[in-house]
Amino acid sequence: MSPRGRRPGAPDTRAAILAAARERFAEGGLAGTSVRSVAAAAGVDPALVHHYFGTKDDLFLAALELRVDPREAVRPVVEAGLEGAGERLVRLLLDVWDDEETRLPLLAVLRGIGEPNGQRLLRDGVLRMVLGPLVGGLGVDQPERRAVLLATQLVGVVVLRYLLQAEPLASAGREQVVATYAPVVQRFLADPLP
Amino acid sequence: MSPRGRRPGAPDTRAAILAAARERFAEGGLAGTSVRSVAAAAGVDPALVHHYFGTKDDLFLAALELRVDPREAVRPVVEAGLEGAGERLVRLLLDVWDDEETRLPLLAVLRGIGEPNGQRLLRDGVLRMVLGPLVGGLGVDQPERRAVLLATQLVGVVVLRYLLQAEPLASAGREQVVATYAPVVQRFLADPLP
Repeated sequence: MSPRGRRPGAPDTRAAILAAARERFAEGGLAGTSVRSVAAAAGVDPALVHHYFGTKDDLFLAALELRVDPREAVRPVVEAGLEGAGERLVRLLLDVWDDEETRLPLLAVLRGIGEPNGQRLLRDGVLRMVLGPLVGGLGVDQPERRAVLLATQLVGVVVLRYLLQAEPLASAGREQVVATYAPVVQRFLADPLP
Repeated sequence: MSPRGRRPGAPDTRAAILAAARERFAEGGLAGTSVRSVAAAAGVDPALVHHYFGTKDDLFLAALELRVDPREAVRPVVEAGLEGAGERLVRLLLDVWDDEETRLPLLAVLRGIGEPNGQRLLRDGVLRMVLGPLVGGLGVDQPERRAVLLATQLVGVVVLRYLLQAEPLASAGREQVVATYAPVVQRFLADPLP
């Protein structure tokens, strides 16, 4: 009901910060982007960015506009320990991707895979927000390498089942998908690596 | 050196057929596109399309402008039999993708993954031109299902190693990649499926 014009704390300030964050993270990646540079691009004080969005990682996730915080989603997978973690991770993937409400924002990120900015967002999202915390929490050896190996199988499942909708995987039942992929995922998580 | 204007058999007739083929296959997929419809779109006789490009599958591959014919490339993998086929397939993938000359046209197809037309080309290319002939040639049970399972792992490797260039996989040595993925690929090829 207020007249036009920007107020600190108003929705358009938040939106301006998010738009600047999306652009900066897409161009520079998570590692190459500072909260300060996002604040400068949005024309606000860095403290305001922290006030609204928390840490740089929080801001990154907010910019992706997901419906789930992957760092929280993987917590139960980690807390139950390494045994059976592969199966729990595949179940989590299906929970998130079989539900349209959480799938659609993720598909939007995945569709950016064809161009460099989208590739950086996807890579940082998958590796730093989902699989990095997962392998870190489980305390396995060679965590960076395991995270990427897991990503090859899980991104492949997502691409074929949800993006390309290749049959018979696209309409395969949940338990069949779990039984098929849990052993591969568990191997990449826990077995000695060559 | 001829004056402008189209001649039958001239390079621009071939180019017109290829352009029409790319558009039709991207919109209708391999199964939903006929040589006749491509010929009509290019304004030529279907016999001329067959004369220049052979079968519909040949035309599809020509339209993708790859440097390798995947049906020929997988032949040695098939002919040596099921035992060790997983390792040979991973080696073939690395041969083709580590070589810039063959990688660049494939990357161009892969980059189309973000939009529906590109998704159809990619799906048909991977499943009908590479993995379909492979599982068919090996004579395994549930060939369609195995082809898609193989695709999840192989497409995942390609996306992470070559498109997202995620480390440490992007610069991992060939033998390490083979040792890591050959068992998973062999399992999807040959083990009983759940």
